[in-house]
Amino acid sequence: MKKKIVAKGSLYPKKTVTKKNTISKSGQISLNSYEVLLQNNKNWAAETIKQDPDFFHRLANVQKPEFLWIGCSDSRVPADRITGTQPGEIFVHRNIANMVVHTDLNLLAVLEYAVNHLHVKHIIVCGHYNCGGVKAAMGRHNLGIINKWVRNIKDVYRIHREEIDYQTKESEQLNRLIELNVQEQVMNLAKTSIIQKSWKEEQRPYLHGWVYSVDDGIIHPICEMGHDDHIDPLYEFDDL
Amino acid sequence: MKKKIVAKGSLYPKKTVTKKNTISKSGQISLNSYEVLLQNNKNWAAETIKQDPDFFHRLANVQKPEFLWIGCSDSRVPADRITGTQPGEIFVHRNIANMVVHTDLNLLAVLEYAVNHLHVKHIIVCGHYNCGGVKAAMGRHNLGIINKWVRNIKDVYRIHREEIDYQTKESEQLNRLIELNVQEQVMNLAKTSIIQKSWKEEQRPYLHGWVYSVDDGIIHPICEMGHDDHIDPLYEFDDL
Amino acid sequence: MKKKIVAKGSLYPKKTVTKKNTISKSGQISLNSYEVLLQNNKNWAAETIKQDPDFFHRLANVQKPEFLWIGCSDSRVPADRITGTQPGEIFVHRNIANMVVHTDLNLLAVLEYAVNHLHVKHIIVCGHYNCGGVKAAMGRHNLGIINKWVRNIKDVYRIHREEIDYQTKESEQLNRLIELNVQEQVMNLAKTSIIQKSWKEEQRPYLHGWVYSVDDGIIHPICEMGHDDHIDPLYEFDDL
Amino acid sequence: MKKKIVAKGSLYPKKTVTKKNTISKSGQISLNSYEVLLQNNKNWAAETIKQDPDFFHRLANVQKPEFLWIGCSDSRVPADRITGTQPGEIFVHRNIANMVVHTDLNLLAVLEYAVNHLHVKHIIVCGHYNCGGVKAAMGRHNLGIINKWVRNIKDVYRIHREEIDYQTKESEQLNRLIELNVQEQVMNLAKTSIIQKSWKEEQRPYLHGWVYSVDDGIIHPICEMGHDDHIDPLYEFDDL
Repeated sequence: MKKKIVAKGSLYPKKTVTKKNTISKSGQISLNSYEVLLQNNKNWAAETIKQDPDFFHRLANVQKPEFLWIGCSDSRVPADRITGTQPGEIFVHRNIANMVVHTDLNLLAVLEYAVNHLHVKHIIVCGHYNCGGVKAAMGRHNLGIINKWVRNIKDVYRIHREEIDYQTKESEQLNRLIELNVQEQVMNLAKTSIIQKSWKEEQRPYLHGWVYSVDDGIIHPICEMGHDDHIDPLYEFDDL
Repeated sequence: MKKKIVAKGSLYPKKTVTKKNTISKSGQISLNSYEVLLQNNKNWAAETIKQDPDFFHRLANVQKPEFLWIGCSDSRVPADRITGTQPGEIFVHRNIANMVVHTDLNLLAVLEYAVNHLHVKHIIVCGHYNCGGVKAAMGRHNLGIINKWVRNIKDVYRIHREEIDYQTKESEQLNRLIELNVQEQVMNLAKTSIIQKSWKEEQRPYLHGWVYSVDDGIIHPICEMGHDDHIDPLYEFDDL
Repeated sequence: MKKKIVAKGSLYPKKTVTKKNTISKSGQISLNSYEVLLQNNKNWAAETIKQDPDFFHRLANVQKPEFLWIGCSDSRVPADRITGTQPGEIFVHRNIANMVVHTDLNLLAVLEYAVNHLHVKHIIVCGHYNCGGVKAAMGRHNLGIINKWVRNIKDVYRIHREEIDYQTKESEQLNRLIELNVQEQVMNLAKTSIIQKSWKEEQRPYLHGWVYSVDDGIIHPICEMGHDDHIDPLYEFDDL
Repeated sequence: MKKKIVAKGSLYPKKTVTKKNTISKSGQISLNSYEVLLQNNKNWAAETIKQDPDFFHRLANVQKPEFLWIGCSDSRVPADRITGTQPGEIFVHRNIANMVVHTDLNLLAVLEYAVNHLHVKHIIVCGHYNCGGVKAAMGRHNLGIINKWVRNIKDVYRIHREEIDYQTKESEQLNRLIELNVQEQVMNLAKTSIIQKSWKEEQRPYLHGWVYSVDDGIIHPICEMGHDDHIDPLYEFDDL
């Protein structure tokens, strides 16, 4: 039973859309692709309850994840699948090229909630080799509104130019920038008052920089930081 | 082999952190929680290749997802798991309370990339009942930087106040706001020039508003919109 | 003596641009328009010191403005000129259509600084009749990146549609929206934790909504709010 | 005649606030400070019309400014006053420390409007010595939401650290950072597709970096860029 979009005063009544499933010559009903997802969902829920009748009940009222995952939107890098985790274990934010932008209220709200309300112990920034977003930052194409996001990555390139250009192959340059970008985003976390305050008061969370290889499915740890690590004093608050 | 965070000029050398695994009385090595994730990852990659030797090879160079998923960061709602999809099938953005904020460059970059570079056919905004972010919007607590994000949801409440307050129980009010919020976010997609242009030129993507029930694992479709639906003319561009 | 743009590592040396002044037939040197501004500046500084030798000395080390002005970028509405105020009296933010957007860190930083560091007593949101930004919001043209800003004004229209459409002439609709927009922006200030906290602790600042008439140079007060006024409880924090 | 804030459905009726003017012992009415501004305004409008009866009429329907001014919110640096310009001559954006942040839709909307709708010929980024915002960036105090804005300036420091730290006095370091910050913001303009496109198609606008001295009222040109200057190729679009 679908509700029609009819909101008060402002939204115009929407005619009810009836999507017809196609009946193939063989007489089988061919589902629309999104209906396959809904069917999969029903199957998964039934199977899950069958194997663990209490599963949803345990999760219904509260989540207590130990991890915040900041990863790329790329369809090939689903956080829970590649880490073998279950629903309830990882709080997830995914954007293009797994960026931590200090003026981005979307990410900042996720971070504050994860650190101060869910009390996560670990934050993982996970990039991946062959990342389209980072590749875009190495190019010079006008990508419309995406330009504004990609500029953040270009600024990482600018800072680490020497090290990146030192690589001879373009693919190596790309992958080095991907690694350095993850490193900078971990550092961007450490530059927030949210993390610095939590480090001071609760000695958590631990920050991890990982890069996932789409070639073989393996995650490569790149860097890590904890409450007793120091960052550039320029970015360290002295009165939190 | 971890690389130390030593970036040129600006970042201070970080001492190498050696995390020691604990050896329990029984002599077994107890892994740190994040190491379990890395171990799971190795197992998953090995198992995946065993079952389908070509799996990663097929995905290595390109992603061709048919779906963009805009969901909540909540750990209990992993997009791919609950829809039974494989790596490569869903492009994912997750933020607090699955919001589509028109000034949010994080989401806008994801949307532009999904629509105009990945050419997705469907966009799913998926909320979930008992959502902490929406609950926060119904309350009056000062949540620091989260306030700025939650204000977006309060504005949805303001518009649909009558319908929400009509519900007698608080939990029903919450769940109605969750549904109406998903509806407004679908509408927010339809108000972007990105979607309107793609609707005009390519008659895609189809927009779906879903709400997932953490109680039983079932997804409930709430609303949907396609290229031949009309939105409030105030928000319709006439010269795209 | 101009410094060339030659920054370390990242910026490319810029050739020195020599702008030649034109010598007209009459033999007079015609200044480039921006040079007129620099010449005006020299004259103004000299004249100011002549009339009040201590003028700049008094202002050199500190500003103590009593007012924050949030006005439109429109060139016809210079805050200090139309209010007859001197340098040092008004702290100023100007953007398109004098908007107070709750996710806008640009404005929020200005507001926080004005309220908690400069301790201003009054905040004035000043719109003006015949505002191009508001006019754009009533139209349906695609304005590129400006769309994202104008959407904020369209949302004001959506909420007050009935009252605006009640006006018969288009120019009256525009001007009513301009007034209602100022009102909503004053309310947006009152919805911030910055203002609510300052109201609670220091019974300031007083908020003013004004509309300037470009036709005759007169400012029209539209609304005002102080610490003992109440806003929609939905937006009132109960634990500041 | 003030209109009360009574908006449909959402805003609560606001009691009418009656501000009483104080009558001093001498019997003179003492105006509230903001009433002085309104009185000044009336005087200014009357005086202006007296000297130039057609003044407002000329400006009523259109603005054709030749300049966009991006300056600091600081009350001591009113754009029009220090440049001796009249209403209608300068389109103005002012924020803390005159920043051009590539993800800031507030500034971007101003820029797009100025360049592509008002067709300005010059854009002036004007900082000022002894700027409180830049000073904050050199310190380590937690400034709440202002931190997010000040981080942009810290990133300028990071890039030019060597040159700034080379100065021996703290005041010189501050003033050098202020100059370099203006330079970077001019460069940030040049990195936008808005400017690059306009340079390519219309050979305008010319960009100027100025620093105003609050000590003596004099503006110091620091750098300038035009359509035939080149920026770091990393940031140059090749297909605008």
